[in-house]
Amino acid sequence: MSNGGGVLSSTTHLLDFLEEPIPGVGTYDDFHTIDWVREKCKDRERHRKINTKKKESAWEFTKSLYDAWSGWLVVTLTGLASGALAGLIDISADWLNDIKEGVCLNAMWFNHEQCCWGSNETTFAERDKCPQWKSWAGLILGQEEGPGSYIMNYFMYIYWALSFALLAVLLVKVFAPYACGSGIPEIKTILSGFIIRGYLGKWTLLIKTVTLVLAVASGLSLGKEGPLVHVACCCGNIFSYLFPKYSKNEAKKREVLSAASAAGVSVAFGAPIGGVLFSLEEVSYYFPLKTLWRSFFAALVAAFVLRSINPFGNSRLVLFYVEYHTPWYLRKSTRFGKYPVLEVIFVAAITAVVAFPNPYTRQNTSELIKELFTDCGPLESSQLCQYRSQMNGSKAFGDASPNKPAGPGVYTAMWQLCLALVFKIIMTIFTFGLKVPAGLFIPSMAIGAIAGRIVGIAVEQLAYYHHDWLVFREWCEVGTDCITPGLYAMVGAAACLGGVTRMTVSLVVIVFELTGGLEYIVPLMAAVMTSKWVGDAFGREGIYESHIRLNGYPFLDAKSEFTHTTLAREVMRPQRSDPPLAVLTQDDLTVEELQVIINETSYNGFPVIVSKESQRLVGFALRRDITIAIENARRKQEGILLTSRVYFTQHAPTLPADSPRPLKLRSILDMSPFTVTDHTPMEIVVDIFRKLGLRQCLVTHNGRLLGIITKKDILRHMAQLTNQDPDNIMFN
Amino acid sequence: MSNGGGVLSSTTHLLDFLEEPIPGVGTYDDFHTIDWVREKCKDRERHRKINTKKKESAWEFTKSLYDAWSGWLVVTLTGLASGALAGLIDISADWLNDIKEGVCLNAMWFNHEQCCWGSNETTFAERDKCPQWKSWAGLILGQEEGPGSYIMNYFMYIYWALSFALLAVLLVKVFAPYACGSGIPEIKTILSGFIIRGYLGKWTLLIKTVTLVLAVASGLSLGKEGPLVHVACCCGNIFSYLFPKYSKNEAKKREVLSAASAAGVSVAFGAPIGGVLFSLEEVSYYFPLKTLWRSFFAALVAAFVLRSINPFGNSRLVLFYVEYHTPWYLRKSTRFGKYPVLEVIFVAAITAVVAFPNPYTRQNTSELIKELFTDCGPLESSQLCQYRSQMNGSKAFGDASPNKPAGPGVYTAMWQLCLALVFKIIMTIFTFGLKVPAGLFIPSMAIGAIAGRIVGIAVEQLAYYHHDWLVFREWCEVGTDCITPGLYAMVGAAACLGGVTRMTVSLVVIVFELTGGLEYIVPLMAAVMTSKWVGDAFGREGIYESHIRLNGYPFLDAKSEFTHTTLAREVMRPQRSDPPLAVLTQDDLTVEELQVIINETSYNGFPVIVSKESQRLVGFALRRDITIAIENARRKQEGILLTSRVYFTQHAPTLPADSPRPLKLRSILDMSPFTVTDHTPMEIVVDIFRKLGLRQCLVTHNGRLLGIITKKDILRHMAQLTNQDPDNIMFN
Repeated sequence: MSNGGGVLSSTTHLLDFLEEPIPGVGTYDDFHTIDWVREKCKDRERHRKINTKKKESAWEFTKSLYDAWSGWLVVTLTGLASGALAGLIDISADWLNDIKEGVCLNAMWFNHEQCCWGSNETTFAERDKCPQWKSWAGLILGQEEGPGSYIMNYFMYIYWALSFALLAVLLVKVFAPYACGSGIPEIKTILSGFIIRGYLGKWTLLIKTVTLVLAVASGLSLGKEGPLVHVACCCGNIFSYLFPKYSKNEAKKREVLSAASAAGVSVAFGAPIGGVLFSLEEVSYYFPLKTLWRSFFAALVAAFVLRSINPFGNSRLVLFYVEYHTPWYLRKSTRFGKYPVLEVIFVAAITAVVAFPNPYTRQNTSELIKELFTDCGPLESSQLCQYRSQMNGSKAFGDASPNKPAGPGVYTAMWQLCLALVFKIIMTIFTFGLKVPAGLFIPSMAIGAIAGRIVGIAVEQLAYYHHDWLVFREWCEVGTDCITPGLYAMVGAAACLGGVTRMTVSLVVIVFELTGGLEYIVPLMAAVMTSKWVGDAFGREGIYESHIRLNGYPFLDAKSEFTHTTLAREVMRPQRSDPPLAVLTQDDLTVEELQVIINETSYNGFPVIVSKESQRLVGFALRRDITIAIENARRKQEGILLTSRVYFTQHAPTLPADSPRPLKLRSILDMSPFTVTDHTPMEIVVDIFRKLGLRQCLVTHNGRLLGIITKKDILRHMAQLTNQDPDNIMFN
Repeated sequence: MSNGGGVLSSTTHLLDFLEEPIPGVGTYDDFHTIDWVREKCKDRERHRKINTKKKESAWEFTKSLYDAWSGWLVVTLTGLASGALAGLIDISADWLNDIKEGVCLNAMWFNHEQCCWGSNETTFAERDKCPQWKSWAGLILGQEEGPGSYIMNYFMYIYWALSFALLAVLLVKVFAPYACGSGIPEIKTILSGFIIRGYLGKWTLLIKTVTLVLAVASGLSLGKEGPLVHVACCCGNIFSYLFPKYSKNEAKKREVLSAASAAGVSVAFGAPIGGVLFSLEEVSYYFPLKTLWRSFFAALVAAFVLRSINPFGNSRLVLFYVEYHTPWYLRKSTRFGKYPVLEVIFVAAITAVVAFPNPYTRQNTSELIKELFTDCGPLESSQLCQYRSQMNGSKAFGDASPNKPAGPGVYTAMWQLCLALVFKIIMTIFTFGLKVPAGLFIPSMAIGAIAGRIVGIAVEQLAYYHHDWLVFREWCEVGTDCITPGLYAMVGAAACLGGVTRMTVSLVVIVFELTGGLEYIVPLMAAVMTSKWVGDAFGREGIYESHIRLNGYPFLDAKSEFTHTTLAREVMRPQRSDPPLAVLTQDDLTVEELQVIINETSYNGFPVIVSKESQRLVGFALRRDITIAIENARRKQEGILLTSRVYFTQHAPTLPADSPRPLKLRSILDMSPFTVTDHTPMEIVVDIFRKLGLRQCLVTHNGRLLGIITKKDILRHMAQLTNQDPDNIMFN
């Protein structure tokens, strides 16, 4: 790259070669959309500079090596931190969850299971009971059994649940309002190129980690999977500040965040490949192949860190936590919404009061799902497996495989499961939207798994008692094991989660990695496809897209197709009734006139044209850049007055002898603005915006400038076409 | 969509509303590049028409349902056919391969293994020998042992190998020249939007299937994985002709082909998820999320069909076949190249002569890889496992796990493996490029696996004899099993294949699906990453990209970054020394003048401008469309003479009273051509071409037309910048 060639450099349209870059030009305001093309150009320019410099000295060469490796370093760090935090959260939540029921006398910091590990006195069936672990009734009243202790335990359970919930909501409210919810809709929006400062900051990370533990332990119907994705993205964002390549470039930073979200799902479910596909399918916007590879690496690192921490003591299943649920629009208008703390306490109280008496709602949701997925083997002591054996009617626990008539335990379990199903559905609807970290994955899966298991047991009993029915006759003879209720639960869980989030491949791969059986991939696929089709019949949006729309974020979904026949000229501004387009001419405005135009309008940028007569387009200048440049010039350059001429051309215009020094603004002029003709179908325009990540596009007719289309214009137009309120789109 | 609104319809720029579409307009010539934007617009227009019509009658509604489901139908059919064909190829190749060594007396159509299944006389260790199976020496000379039979068997082996190879090359040469090679480079090119008629046709499919069996059975150092991808794509292409949605739209057809290539890899390796990732990472160009989901479905269907055919009788491993290998540019200049049949015979003869005496080269390559991957367990009878047991020095077969000193069998195996390695490397280099169906995956994996196993055994013996060395001291004590030579082989295979193809995530997932161990994913990743980095140090191209470049296909790689600082005005034509740009004015050309312009130039299209003076751009017209439209008009419309005025405007220009009837060509005018300014950095232009799939783009300066950039211009420019011959890019 010779010096003479510098004039031809790709950034001439951004920064003039001969001038110092003006500080602040090229950055973004909060709640604004980034320009992907410009960011990518900036990165390539940086890369070229480093490549040129690296031959100069050993130090520069080392710096260039560091720069080249920083991508791998940042995803490694992110993977390590995500795995470690996930392990920490798992262990803490487990411990706090058991605190609700009792305490370990030997060592306060042991949870129930760890407390009883050392105990040799217990049999396998009663492995939960050991003298070291005292329920609250046992500790306070000195007795473990009886109605008094039951009430005491019930009371302590509610007390702890409320304390945890209160602490969580207060921490969120006071320190980090962004820590509430699952965070996935906002992360999708950020990845699509939107700026929300502080959403992925260190305070959010800290508070989200702490309150996530509290919220899970409080027993609310929520999960930690979605929030773990947010936690991992916070790690990615924080580590990206160590590397100038990523901290100073919004587009490159989003590559790290894509990898981080893969790591988040990887630790949430122990599913590294599923995590990568989730990042690709669900959250990411710009996903080059390099990011695929780095996401995979981050997901693996995170999964292996989590496995070596081994929070569940079995090094295999990292199954099932909780997230929020479907008809959440209900919650936008509750009167409680104004009092988030009261609301959390209220929901937590109801959850605790109702959940305690039913074993299926009292237990940890992930354990519930695991139990529902498990088939009845000879060692299974669960109530769900109390079948009457055919050989020996009195035997309580089932042996190997054939379908058997249900025993009393199964009937009790069925009733409890039905109640749990109703309870879970209602509570999840109300829990979603609370101002605490709340995920949706696990509650959805739990609801699906309960429904699936109920159906599975029902079909099993039908098949047993009516094996001569046409549907069963061929493949379901007496004494064979033709119905597997656990598989029904698994399929139900996948279907329910699929219906809520509309995930496809990533969901199948996550469930397949969770359960480890390639054989079940066909029923899983069938279930996910059916639930997606049924869901799409009611509306094509998944929960995250709905959330984004409700919050009014400017998110141009890459999945939904634009099927209307409008043309660019019908969407562009100005329309006939509007005031004319605010444009700048390239060399006959004064500083004062420019300031008037800026003050009288609120547009983010202005097209620059040759002259009002020809309307031929020269380039595009951003409002923010113009303001910064004028301020900078008046502070640093002498002789710049309000009457100074402003010019965007290479050479200053010829001026009368007594005129003040003119101001050259070519350095902030984007000389390669995107243009389309007024006859371009909007489907092409939408495609260009999506694929190139544009912020605005100019509209011409036969070479003359006609108007402008911004991302917000497109979103408003799409909202209008689907009869939604276009004023919902709030940000730029 | 009202009739009045039809004028605003998105296709006004393609087809005029009031006129009949001219037949032939909108199709492509062979060896030309498609325009993705136009194809996608056509599809959306079709979709809208069907949606409007479906309310008219029950028949139209049924048709719209059929149309909506045709995507799923076509991928299902493709998956079914790919799975079935793969099973057929596996079984036939196995049978033909065994024919080289002998024949089953009871049933000619049984291969060696099937022949001996029924035999009860043999022990487990000698399960390959049974009286029903006769070697050729046994059949012809009547004796199975002795030097005479060895030579007889050797001769028959060569005879059959040469016959198969000769038949294969003749069939390819006479009936379907496109059936040779692996086909993956061409499929990549086709998927990127290039037309090669007949490449995926029924003749190619038939001949490729038959000759693939012959080529594999001939014992040449090639594999069937890559060709299976070609076979699957042929199926996808043929089935897409059943559905107008896909047969008439080149962009939609490529969605089916992406899914088909996933199905191909899925059946080649039994790795459905790996297949989807391969399609995404390696071959596909335009891969929307809908295609991800359909690819996954096609891959699953294909894998399950193959599994139910169960060609290997174990329903688990569908391991390892063959593909071509790395320094193949050697082969472009051989004198043999002109005589493809002779060449194949020559290579086949050498392969057969050298391969027979060495057991590791005689055996089926996939079986070799399986043996190399396998660890030595107590039941393993392989020569590779003849360790001396420490407890009992004379015991030939190893028991469970600890590392042991090598026995004589292992030393023999080591020598044979070294010879096999050299032989495989040389033969694979020469086999790749033969005019028979030839894949590269399996030979590469075999080379890597042999090298890996050799290193593994060497390290194992080092660790055994020198366990006090610093590197072994900590973790490798006497009597423990610290070195697993099988794992070395697996890692070597992945690394070698990774170096050849530069695949990353998909390769790791394929090998992980093949071997089923998530534990080995970390060494696999490390190996693939290292080999990619080492390979990239020699040049960033994988084998398929090199092949595409050598063949001169116009392929704009989505992976490689454009890092130069050139601007659009340096790449566009005309440059200063060139003749001026051939343009059409919108309303003052006659038919004769238009024909002169078309005949004197060879451009694919012409910009249409308002007038020569203003140079303001109106639109773009394709050469092919103009020719067809003029011919059509002169045939069908009366009064069109050579002196007729041609106009592209909405209304006819005012003409003198005696002038002949003017010809309106607005219907073929693309009124939304893509434009960039002359100052646009080429990196942005390349990005636009890649992401939107453009064929050409016009260059303007301050609203005036300056020049044009085509995909070929970009490829030539990129070749120039990397000091390659720009005339290598041959097609448009």
